[in-house]
Amino acid sequence: MRLNRERLVDAALALVDDDGSEALSMRTLAARVDRQVSSLYNHVSGRTELIELMRARIVADIDVAAFASVGTSARAIPWERALEFWARSYLRAFAAHPNLIRLLATTEIRDLSTYEMYDAVIAGLRRGGWPESRTVAVMRTVEAHVLGSALDIIAPSDLIAQDSADVRFSEIRTALDPRFVETSSATAAFELGLNALIDGLRLQLEAGIS
Amino acid sequence: MRLNRERLVDAALALVDDDGSEALSMRTLAARVDRQVSSLYNHVSGRTELIELMRARIVADIDVAAFASVGTSARAIPWERALEFWARSYLRAFAAHPNLIRLLATTEIRDLSTYEMYDAVIAGLRRGGWPESRTVAVMRTVEAHVLGSALDIIAPSDLIAQDSADVRFSEIRTALDPRFVETSSATAAFELGLNALIDGLRLQLEAGIS
Repeated sequence: MRLNRERLVDAALALVDDDGSEALSMRTLAARVDRQVSSLYNHVSGRTELIELMRARIVADIDVAAFASVGTSARAIPWERALEFWARSYLRAFAAHPNLIRLLATTEIRDLSTYEMYDAVIAGLRRGGWPESRTVAVMRTVEAHVLGSALDIIAPSDLIAQDSADVRFSEIRTALDPRFVETSSATAAFELGLNALIDGLRLQLEAGIS
Repeated sequence: MRLNRERLVDAALALVDDDGSEALSMRTLAARVDRQVSSLYNHVSGRTELIELMRARIVADIDVAAFASVGTSARAIPWERALEFWARSYLRAFAAHPNLIRLLATTEIRDLSTYEMYDAVIAGLRRGGWPESRTVAVMRTVEAHVLGSALDIIAPSDLIAQDSADVRFSEIRTALDPRFVETSSATAAFELGLNALIDGLRLQLEAGIS
């Protein structure tokens, strides 16, 4: 099969999904696509560019469009709604590639599409009434909430299980009762937290945070 | 130096801090402490136990005591305050060992001290007025917020930098202005988000979530 940039990104994503981000190198990637390392450099300039291409792939699945409609006339939507759409699609995109979370969260961002996404979020928050000095914090705390929740959602369901808790831990055993599963799952927790976070941000904005 | 359980946990933490959680195996740990793999089994039963010992080490640094004072008479403190103390010390504990976040967030919990911590949190939330069906979600969404924020806090400061953003991204460039650094840092974002999350949870509790 002919190698190209897209296929290399596919292979890099599969490698990180399977073996973790530490496993990603030009050498391991070359082995995976059954090529010499040197031939990879015909398509990408190296590991750094590869990471940014993976980032772009994830970002393409994140829905930022709603922010464009915040605060504009007829079909305006509130910033809270745009933030919700964004957070949910962000969660879905990262929950599909949990091993990328740490890598992307701690690698300097060069990818233009990511800056484009951030620009749209910040602009929407501004039009929604947020002061310039707080927009970055609002955006990054929602991101942090999403990434932490993605880790929780991809965890095995028996991470904390009623059966694993010693009988003397009666509170946690009661709370983990299977009849509460719908309100205590990782996904339910994400939704509860996202709603609370957005409600709380609205309160702070109304209180005149500056 | 004589090997013991504590020293093995020290070495395992150092190994994960340096090389990532995927690098942790009994073989790599043996190399690190300059012993045969077989001699490690005199102290721990294997990788699984080692992970739980690392978990216990982290949990020991998390302040859960405040939950014991929630809802009790004279020196009672509100659940919101206990949650704040817990979240801040949880953040500090994990920000010191970022490579452990993914590993611990996705490995089945056996460590008793962790269940003890959860039991105290759940009991405190109950006494603070939370319905049984929601305590787990409140606890885990705060945890998710903390872990996502820890990843953000340990990221290099130039992760998203004003200079790296193309001039056409004027919104993000303005928002990243150095004069906003105090209100837009990862730590500021964590505090803004934690306060908002707790405010929002209080609203939901008052609205009679069940």
